[in-house]
Amino acid sequence: MTAPVKGPVKGNAPSRRAFLRGTIAAGGALAGATMARAQATPDPLITEVQDWASGLGDGVDATPYGLPIEFESDVIRRNVEWLTADTISSINFTPIHALDGTITPTGCAFERHHSGAIELRKEDYRLMINGMVDQETIFTYEDLERFPRENHTYFLECAANTGMEWAGAQLNGAQFTHGMIHNMEYSGIPLRTLLEEAGLDTAGDLKDKWVYVEGADASSNGRSIPMEKALDDCLIAIKANGEALRKEHGYPVRLVVPGWEGNMWVKWIRRIEVMDGPVESREETSKYTDTLDNGISRKWTWVMDAKSVVTSPSPQMPITHGHGPLVITGMAWSGRGAITRVDVSKDGGMTWETARLAQPGEDKALTRFYLETEWNGEEMFLQSRAMDSTGYVQPTKNMLREVRGENSIYHNNCIQTWWVKPNGEAENVEVS
Amino acid sequence: MTAPVKGPVKGNAPSRRAFLRGTIAAGGALAGATMARAQATPDPLITEVQDWASGLGDGVDATPYGLPIEFESDVIRRNVEWLTADTISSINFTPIHALDGTITPTGCAFERHHSGAIELRKEDYRLMINGMVDQETIFTYEDLERFPRENHTYFLECAANTGMEWAGAQLNGAQFTHGMIHNMEYSGIPLRTLLEEAGLDTAGDLKDKWVYVEGADASSNGRSIPMEKALDDCLIAIKANGEALRKEHGYPVRLVVPGWEGNMWVKWIRRIEVMDGPVESREETSKYTDTLDNGISRKWTWVMDAKSVVTSPSPQMPITHGHGPLVITGMAWSGRGAITRVDVSKDGGMTWETARLAQPGEDKALTRFYLETEWNGEEMFLQSRAMDSTGYVQPTKNMLREVRGENSIYHNNCIQTWWVKPNGEAENVEVS
Repeated sequence: MTAPVKGPVKGNAPSRRAFLRGTIAAGGALAGATMARAQATPDPLITEVQDWASGLGDGVDATPYGLPIEFESDVIRRNVEWLTADTISSINFTPIHALDGTITPTGCAFERHHSGAIELRKEDYRLMINGMVDQETIFTYEDLERFPRENHTYFLECAANTGMEWAGAQLNGAQFTHGMIHNMEYSGIPLRTLLEEAGLDTAGDLKDKWVYVEGADASSNGRSIPMEKALDDCLIAIKANGEALRKEHGYPVRLVVPGWEGNMWVKWIRRIEVMDGPVESREETSKYTDTLDNGISRKWTWVMDAKSVVTSPSPQMPITHGHGPLVITGMAWSGRGAITRVDVSKDGGMTWETARLAQPGEDKALTRFYLETEWNGEEMFLQSRAMDSTGYVQPTKNMLREVRGENSIYHNNCIQTWWVKPNGEAENVEVS
Repeated sequence: MTAPVKGPVKGNAPSRRAFLRGTIAAGGALAGATMARAQATPDPLITEVQDWASGLGDGVDATPYGLPIEFESDVIRRNVEWLTADTISSINFTPIHALDGTITPTGCAFERHHSGAIELRKEDYRLMINGMVDQETIFTYEDLERFPRENHTYFLECAANTGMEWAGAQLNGAQFTHGMIHNMEYSGIPLRTLLEEAGLDTAGDLKDKWVYVEGADASSNGRSIPMEKALDDCLIAIKANGEALRKEHGYPVRLVVPGWEGNMWVKWIRRIEVMDGPVESREETSKYTDTLDNGISRKWTWVMDAKSVVTSPSPQMPITHGHGPLVITGMAWSGRGAITRVDVSKDGGMTWETARLAQPGEDKALTRFYLETEWNGEEMFLQSRAMDSTGYVQPTKNMLREVRGENSIYHNNCIQTWWVKPNGEAENVEVS
């Protein structure tokens, strides 16, 4: 049926380099590349019949709802024990170093709870809209399913992501420095629709109006949101990545506040009150504010500014394949719009190359970038620098410290540096 | 901190209808809607402190890799026992009736194996390119990671999806009639890149050249693909929905053949041979061909034509919320391009309304559609009809039977009918 296999050689493929020079420089023109290739012993993994080719594998009833294969058991959410006193009010981190593309697999998308992840049945779910509306209203889950819904993909970043790095390079891995982020496709009802259903006159003067949102868990995690944002693009989400929200992400209903800090995306959302001012709750005064050097705290710092990180190579993803072609990849995002460009530096910010965006940047969603390069064992100080559709450029850590000091843990969107050593290992460092 | 909750009422929200008339007809103008709303007894689920609000929930160490909450245990892949003799060479079905958005959760994305799902470690993985190339080449998994990769979202539909429906309405649920489909974001290396790496002159005359692709499992599942398609948009995928491919979807590497029948998306791909003609293997002669009424079989019917299905309401998703506003939703796709329009009929195809696409159709990817309507207990014969960027319109079952007969099980892209009864239950039927 097929031609016999004769003298196959172990590839050593990428050392050939033609594919890189061709693709990057000349748009795919490989024709004519004729570099010689070393012969090697035929590889029994391709020439001999292996166990997995001589028997039957698992049938379709093996996993009605599947999990990753055992060999990927390292690609999991991880906690950092010393960060907080207990796991109930703690966080864990998405294994972004091991992922690609833009969608975060729901099973390893990070969690942050203030009083733990609760179990709330759809039948027991209620959402109240009250306060300055014509008619205080309570929606059941089934009610929500009857409103027109939209689909949008958005990143969610915790305000404290990268927060341990203000004082210096601390956590040794992209998962820990930048893993309080995920990116999902949501199906939900515009918050505007439900406010209008409760009789809010959205054509009236709502300039000084706010909504106060709270969850059904013990912490309630209440936050104030200006009406302009509430009516703009907030969603009452009932699905994420195609399926019901996971328990740890707010099942059955969470608030989506695109581009704004994750703390405001209230899980198990139970009440939305229309008010004529903000509540100044715990979560927006003693927490989630940014204390400057002079002791004054910035508040209402809701938007997550443009940011990026190289996910591979990185401390958890050392270069193990030797010299030659290397794919540098990472992700970028902005709470103010779409990512328009990402630059990568190998020398700690002295020189920059523009990376390739896998797809055009989308509004308030993760963008994947790649830089194909050649690495021959030289030390690198790898950085990435994101730009967004507002013209904003991701700052260095020192630029950020200059205006913000080091008292805060929130809203650190500085340029990250990985020191890649001649042996391929990488370490979290700072460059001055 | 917040205003006291006074006299909330149970919403009966969607019966108000203003949100629908406003959104659909006038682009969101709800202002001025003043319909009265029935008062109801205060709902203890919102006014009283519940168990889940008075204790701690799960901490972040509960599930390093999470699964859906127990209440969603019904949203799983399901087999139909009588369809095939054993589960090893069988299929199961994605629970599309319960999903929303476009991304298929990987854990419940359908499986189809010819000799079961094998376990193949990355270290043991090899991909050979041989045949009419300058240099037969073997790639390790690590080699593949060094080539420039792309990200694309594509649907995969089994050619036999809806195959049981040729002879009449048989399987009672969208999961079973249309669930051999999933839609994922892939990260992979263009097949073109690897063929060029093996020295294929892609600028030369390749008009009559083919590739033959086979997997590492016992079935090998070999298929021939014209070179034009191989060089166009085929990917050697190493990630799906952000993470490593699942075992049942071809870990660690599968072939992606956008828009073409799922059987060609060879899992655990081990060999790609460049040939000067097709192999005419078992999987493209005695299987995956379409036998017409006159006994002659169509072959090379690779492309999955435009198709759609209403996922809710449907037999597994009856209307349980009584009369008034109803969201009809479903999905559409085309192997020839993007979905440009979906129409919905409630009377078995006599009259049609144009549905709302949640996002503009994407090339060879699932599109979600919604039709917001009002239902007051009248019988419906619900249908959806997809159109794609080539101008193609999804046909009725009778139109399809007229040209294709009833001998085939493959490539049934006919319009599906759900009979929605006055009690809200739905059933798979045909209309003539």
